[in-house]
This record gives sequence, C-alpha cells and structure tokens, in this order.
Amino acid sequence: MAARAGGHSQAAMNGMKEKVLTLDTMNPCVRRVEYAVRGPIVLRALELEQDLRQGVKKPFTEIIHANLGDAQAMGQKTITFFRQVLALCVHPDLLNSPHFPEDTKRRAERILQACGGHSLGAYTFSAGIRLFREDVAQYIEQRDGGIPSDPNNIFLSTGASDAIMTVLKLLVAGEGRSRTGVLIPIPQYPLYSAVLAEFNAVQVDYYLDEDRAWALDIAELQRALHEARGHCTPRALCIINPGNPTGQVQTRECIEAVIRFAFEERLFLLADEVYQDNVYADGSRFHSFKKVLMEMGPPYSTQQELASFHSISKGYMGECGFRGGYVEVVNMDPKVQQQMQKLMSVRLCPPVPGQAVLSMVVSPPAPSDPSFEQFQAERQAVLAELAAKAKLTEQVFNEAPGIRCNPVQGAMYSFPRVQLPARAVQRAQELGLAPDMFFCLRLLEETGICVVPGSGFGQREGTYHFRMTILPPMEKLRPLLEKLSQFHAKFTRDFS
Amino acid sequence: MAARAGGHSQAAMNGMKEKVLTLDTMNPCVRRVEYAVRGPIVLRALELEQDLRQGVKKPFTEIIHANLGDAQAMGQKTITFFRQVLALCVHPDLLNSPHFPEDTKRRAERILQACGGHSLGAYTFSAGIRLFREDVAQYIEQRDGGIPSDPNNIFLSTGASDAIMTVLKLLVAGEGRSRTGVLIPIPQYPLYSAVLAEFNAVQVDYYLDEDRAWALDIAELQRALHEARGHCTPRALCIINPGNPTGQVQTRECIEAVIRFAFEERLFLLADEVYQDNVYADGSRFHSFKKVLMEMGPPYSTQQELASFHSISKGYMGECGFRGGYVEVVNMDPKVQQQMQKLMSVRLCPPVPGQAVLSMVVSPPAPSDPSFEQFQAERQAVLAELAAKAKLTEQVFNEAPGIRCNPVQGAMYSFPRVQLPARAVQRAQELGLAPDMFFCLRLLEETGICVVPGSGFGQREGTYHFRMTILPPMEKLRPLLEKLSQFHAKFTRDFS
Repeated sequence: MAARAGGHSQAAMNGMKEKVLTLDTMNPCVRRVEYAVRGPIVLRALELEQDLRQGVKKPFTEIIHANLGDAQAMGQKTITFFRQVLALCVHPDLLNSPHFPEDTKRRAERILQACGGHSLGAYTFSAGIRLFREDVAQYIEQRDGGIPSDPNNIFLSTGASDAIMTVLKLLVAGEGRSRTGVLIPIPQYPLYSAVLAEFNAVQVDYYLDEDRAWALDIAELQRALHEARGHCTPRALCIINPGNPTGQVQTRECIEAVIRFAFEERLFLLADEVYQDNVYADGSRFHSFKKVLMEMGPPYSTQQELASFHSISKGYMGECGFRGGYVEVVNMDPKVQQQMQKLMSVRLCPPVPGQAVLSMVVSPPAPSDPSFEQFQAERQAVLAELAAKAKLTEQVFNEAPGIRCNPVQGAMYSFPRVQLPARAVQRAQELGLAPDMFFCLRLLEETGICVVPGSGFGQREGTYHFRMTILPPMEKLRPLLEKLSQFHAKFTRDFS
Repeated sequence: MAARAGGHSQAAMNGMKEKVLTLDTMNPCVRRVEYAVRGPIVLRALELEQDLRQGVKKPFTEIIHANLGDAQAMGQKTITFFRQVLALCVHPDLLNSPHFPEDTKRRAERILQACGGHSLGAYTFSAGIRLFREDVAQYIEQRDGGIPSDPNNIFLSTGASDAIMTVLKLLVAGEGRSRTGVLIPIPQYPLYSAVLAEFNAVQVDYYLDEDRAWALDIAELQRALHEARGHCTPRALCIINPGNPTGQVQTRECIEAVIRFAFEERLFLLADEVYQDNVYADGSRFHSFKKVLMEMGPPYSTQQELASFHSISKGYMGECGFRGGYVEVVNMDPKVQQQMQKLMSVRLCPPVPGQAVLSMVVSPPAPSDPSFEQFQAERQAVLAELAAKAKLTEQVFNEAPGIRCNPVQGAMYSFPRVQLPARAVQRAQELGLAPDMFFCLRLLEETGICVVPGSGFGQREGTYHFRMTILPPMEKLRPLLEKLSQFHAKFTRDFS
C-alpha cells in the first residue's frame, strides 16, 4: 500500500492521473505466473544477441538457444512430404505442377475437400475438422493395438498447451479448502505451474525420484495427496510421459499403479504424452495411458476419467510454429464434454494449417505411396540422430566431475544435477538469485550458452540442475557439452 | 442439489463411482459462458447438413451458413500474392520455380530470414516476430497520418479474440463490489460476454441507439456506468467500431466524446477495430481510436490507456483459418506490459503462418512490384462487392413489411429488427425459447438458412433481431434475402 500511495502522489505531483491498470490493480493471479522456459534468462540471451549483431565484443560469437525444444530453430530439416502438401493446400494452383508427387496432390485435395470453401483460410468446427479428428482416432487405435477411439472424443487444439489449459480450466472450482488442487510432478514442465497460478488453483507437488532415473513413486504421490487434503481439494493428477524435463520413460507397471491410485483417490488424470515418438533408450517403450487403462478392464476402463495430449511440435517433425495438437478424453461426463466444446468455440477454431499438419502426422504416407521412401528415410534420420545425441549428452556430462546426468530415455532434454560450491550459493543469495539461476546466468554471459535453471522446473531443496535440449546438431552438440562441462569446472574453482 | 444426490445414488446402484468432473463440480464460470455465434442453432445446422448428406428429404437442398463472418467459406477468393508467398515459405524449394513473380520470392525470403532456422516451423518470440511487429507499427503510422507507433507496443496474437482475452484477463481483479466491471455495447459481439463470464468479471451493458443507426450515446454510457458503480468497479470500456453486429461506423466526434468520457471516468479503453478495412457507406470513414486519441493532445494523448485490436480474418482477405491478429497498447504501464508479455509466453507463440499473413496484410505489394496490379484488382473487387451487398441487404430487408434494417455502413453483417406476432412470442415462451431463437430455428428448419438470433448479441427488451452476414456471393444473396423476407411474412401469417 505504501508503494501505491507513493506512486499516486508522485503522479499527482506531475499532474498525471494514476493509471487504471497497474501492478497493484491488475489481475493478481497473472502476477503470480512464472514461466522459466521463456523467463529472465531468455530475455538476457536476446539482449546479448542484439549486442553481438551490433558488433559488441563478447567472449563468444553466437548465442546457443538450448533452452527450448525448438527443433527447426536448431537446424533440424523439415519433412518434405508435409511441406509439399502444405504448399499445395495454401496455393492450389500448384496442383497442376508436375513437380509434386502424385500422393502429395491426392493428400492436398483430401484436406481441401474437408475445409470450408475448400480453403485453409476458412474457420473450421471448433473442435477441428471432422475428417482430421477421424484420422487422429484411427492413429490412436493403431498405436494402441486396436483399442477403439471415438472421433467425438478428440478435440484439436492450438498446440498441446492450449488443450491442457482447456481441460485444467474445466477442473478449477471452489474457494478455501474446496479449492481445486492439481498434482504435478517436480521437476515439471512450467506450463503447469504457470496455468495453475493463472487459474488460481492449488499446485500440489509430488517429487520424482532422481536416484531411480526420475521414476514416479506411488508412495510419494500418497504423501503429496494426503498433505494437500488439509488445505485444498485435490481433483486432478498430471503426468508427463516421456518426462519433460527429466527424459524419463514410465514403465507399464508404473502406469498401472498410477491409474489404480487415481481411481482409488478419485482424481481426473491428465497424461501429457507429447513426446510419445521420442523414446531412445534400449528397454524403454512408450505405453499410452489410454491403452493401459483400457487393458486393465472394468472398473478402470469404464470409469477412470482421462485426458491425453499430443502435439505436432515434437516427435520427428518439430512443427512448433504451426501450433497444432489434440486431446483425447476418455470417460468424460458427456455434459462436461459439451461444456468443453462450448468453451473452445469462443476461441473459434485452432489454426487450420496446424490442423492439416496434424492430419498428416497421424496418417503419414503408406508403403505403397510414392512419397513413402523419402518420408521414412527423413523420419528415421531425425530419430536416429536424436537417440545418438541423447546418449552422447548423458556420457559427456557424466564424465565431468560435479555433474551427474540420468539417462535421457526419451523426450528432448537432459536435466543434469550440478554441484555448486558453497561460496557460489552464498553469492547467489546475496544477489537475490536462485543458485542455479546464478550459475546459468554466468554460463550465458561467459559462453553464450542459454539453458534453463532447475529452479524453474522445481527440484528438491539443496539440489541444483539445469535443463538443456539435446537438439543442437551433432557437430555442435559435443563441443557444446564439453564447453559447458569446462565452464562448470572453472565456476567450481572460481568459487572454492 | 437434489439432482446431484439423485445422480449419485443412481451411480452407486450401478456400482459406478460418480465422476470427478460433472456439471455440478466443474468450473462454474465456464458453465455460465454463452457463445451464440456457434450456439445451439449452429449445432442444429450441422445436424441438418449431415441429414442432407445422408439423403434425408428436406424442404431445401443446402444449408446456408450466414451465421459467421467466414468469407472464404462463402466462396470469397483468396488474394493470390498472399498465397504465393505462403507457398514459397512453407516449401522453400519452390524459390527455384519460374512460376512465381520475383517480388513474391523476395517477400518469402524476407519472412524466412526472420524465422528461427529460416522456417515457419520454429517457435517465435512470444509477442511475435520482431520484423513483423515493425511492419505493423509502420502500417499504423501510415494509417494514422504519421502518428508514431512503437513496435514494442505491438503484440501479435492468435486472431484478435486471443488478444482481447489477454488484455481483459489483465484487467480482472477483486471480489464483491471491487470486482472488475467492463462496459460493453448492446448489441455486442458475444466474445465479450463469453469471456467476461469465463473470467468472472461483471458485464455492464450500454445500449446502442437503434433509431440513430446504432450510434453510441454518451448519456447512455453515463447511465450504465453510474448504475454499475453500486455493485462492481467498472474499469474498462469496450468499443466495437465498425460495429459487430450493428454495421455502424462511428464518427470522429463520437470517438472524441468516448475518449473524454473514458478519461474522466478512469476507464481502460479497448477498441475492437477488426473491420477497419470494411467501410462502405458514403460519408462514413474509419477513424482509429489511436489517431483520435493522439490528435486530442495532452492529457488524453499522454495518459489515456488504450488497446486497439486488428485481425487478418476480416477486411478483404478473410484469412480466418490462419488465426492472425495483433493488439497495439498505448499508455500502458510498462510494468503491466511486461506482465502481459509474460502471460503470452506461457502460450509460447502465435501460429507463424498467421504471423506471416499479417506481415503481408500490413505491408502489401507496392506500386512498383510485379504483383501490385493483380493484388490491387483482387482487393478492390472484394471490397466493391461487399459494398454492393451491404446496400442490397439494407434495401431488400426494408422492402419487407415487419422488417427494418439500419444501413450497413461497415463490417460484414446486417442486424435487422423483426416484428414477431404475439402468438409466436407466446409459443416461444411455452417452449422455453427466446422469441427470436424460435423464429431463427423455424427459419433454419424450413429454408436451410442459418442466422443468429438477436438474443445472442443482446437487444432492448421486447425487440427482436437476427444477425446475418452479407458475405454470400451476389448471385446467392438476393434470393437469400428474398427467401428470408418471404419466410418472415409466412411466419407472421401463421401466428396471427
């Protein structure tokens, strides 16, 4: 209040009215939002980049944005089939060109037929174009060994984030002790903490077990739930599998246990499965929550509520800029499903080019199609390189004293733990910074490498981490990992 | 509560647990949301369409979706330049093709240079690509006769709706009598009422004056504000100009008076100006709130907070499916602006193809460019036809007894008033329907014409309207208008 009154008199002295919208008067929930992946460290990286462009001397020549899972920004090639079909869709005059394989034309015509006015420029049904929702349902059936999927339960979205927000928004209700609590893993992808703050829901943390390669532990879920019940009403449980930022891939047994837990404790399940195509480690395999749930049979298969999310931004295509994704809901109350439909309709529809890409991702060229061979080769090349980079990352980090990195079984990130010397921790505290933020800022200033401090994802008290994507091209990744390890060694010397 | 208990015991009898997420337990704000433009009448239209496809006999052969401002769905042609450049951007191999004008290639290269990894598939800065924000600022400067615009005050968005939601979200705060109130016109575009319900803000209605072609009346603003002050804290005023659904274009004098009012009463101004290119009537001209505000000089130009919204979905291009738009903020507290930036970053970034289209819309081919002539011809053709359709609509409706239609000065809709016989009103009430909903449903069932009842936009008690787009192609529009007028005459006979 002192600050506000001060601001007011200051404004008055200048003959200015105080603004209507200030930090004091704005939405307090929005003020509480934090989103580390694009937080202060990224803004600083942008400033440094501008400095470099203007010729300011730095101890490095470029900024390496290893903070975000943005494959194409890191130089990953696009999948030719997807882009050929898109070009035909946005500019159908090209359908007469001899330079496009016959199946790309067939595909483009199929997409345009499904669009209003045969154009990507028309609005679609709010849940997305019906044909594409059918494509998604078919993809899910195939993925899950024939377990049926109903297109009416598929809602296309503006990237997975948008769909996650929509489902969480439905779940938020109550005041005081009846306020909705949502269990999220720690470390988490900070979309979850940001959205829960924005929606004024209670974030309930359950810690993943770093000593078991970030596995999920049911006893820890129990602990988190029971402690939360004193001050809120936990109603949902979020799972990220494969894990972001952990890279962990859950076993089938673990998923079964989670489903049993959610059922017993009456929690709505949200399964963030956007990295389902990104599984690298020997012995790891992606199991969808939907499949496991259905195979467990009644009462789970008939009663447990589940929303599963997928995206075109990850996998082998990395089409982040198109903002496409979907959610499949299972066992959702049909009346709530109508409400969800209504809520989405206020936003009119997801971007149609993203819908079109999604339709291709879930239904790529078949072996008999002219584009099949090239598609398959491009897809395999990306996934094989990602697997090699996952391995290399783990290996180089674990060779460095003071850095310990769990295997990157899947997804697109390593989340190594770093030892920070006591004097560095103290110095950070003097500066009002989280110790790993201090480390990452120094790393950025001295090497141009931009990674995100573990404090942005959450971690056990007294441990320090950072998240780094494995996406840089192979020839850049090894020097990058070594530079980072060397910086850590120097940092440790400087502060000991 | 009875229903809930009933549901519970029913579930128990079947050995089922009650669902976690039900109408009773879900977010009550979402339940209260209504969005007429895609409401029950549109869902019914989709059902009828499916019936037709399956060969069910109806008194019509097609559904005419006159409910939505969706130009390309109605057959409007795309602008060749935009689509050529987009094709080059999504599939840069085409840059070697001889079939694209040289300026489309230059433009595509400029766009790709500004993208991460030179691809539309990379994420962008959350407020949009810097270069495009500079393009928008330049467009605004030109539009407003040289008044400066700062790219840092431009935020690109997923259509204008997304930006409107973001700004409103910042403004929402308080409980009880300090709860944020937002003044919106009646009739309004139902995005506003839907979002205010979703955000739990108080909707404060001010009525436009149907007898003066839906002009805004300052005395009515005063009335609405003073009545609202008893039970909430009005903090923002929304203006839609050109008007949706009214088609009214505000005079410069009116805009000045609104700005003075907002300043005196300390209201944040939201100017929805997505139809700024759609002005048809002789004597009508678009004046941007930003320009008028700046020309009024201090204290208005230096203090009045304003957010102005624009979109690629309307105008002459109608690229709705790409979901592109922007907001320019003026005199916003810089610290709040940072908060807005942060909030947008949680959604990562607006779709990049939409950003690219926006960059072209605000910076179309210049007279010296090879594409200029065709671009200009296509643009003029669309706008000239829209102007003719606006006139025709007004004329045909006003020839019909019992229908009265204000001039469609701008935007894309007519909002005629219809007289409904007392017996029809009574019958509607028996069915639990708004009388104009009853009228529109009958219209749909008997003619296949889908329009939106005035009750979805708001109207003075005891008056009835519907909104219909002027977008159907000329050769369809006249028979459509006549069919609608005839149906109204028959409806009047049937119920008198």
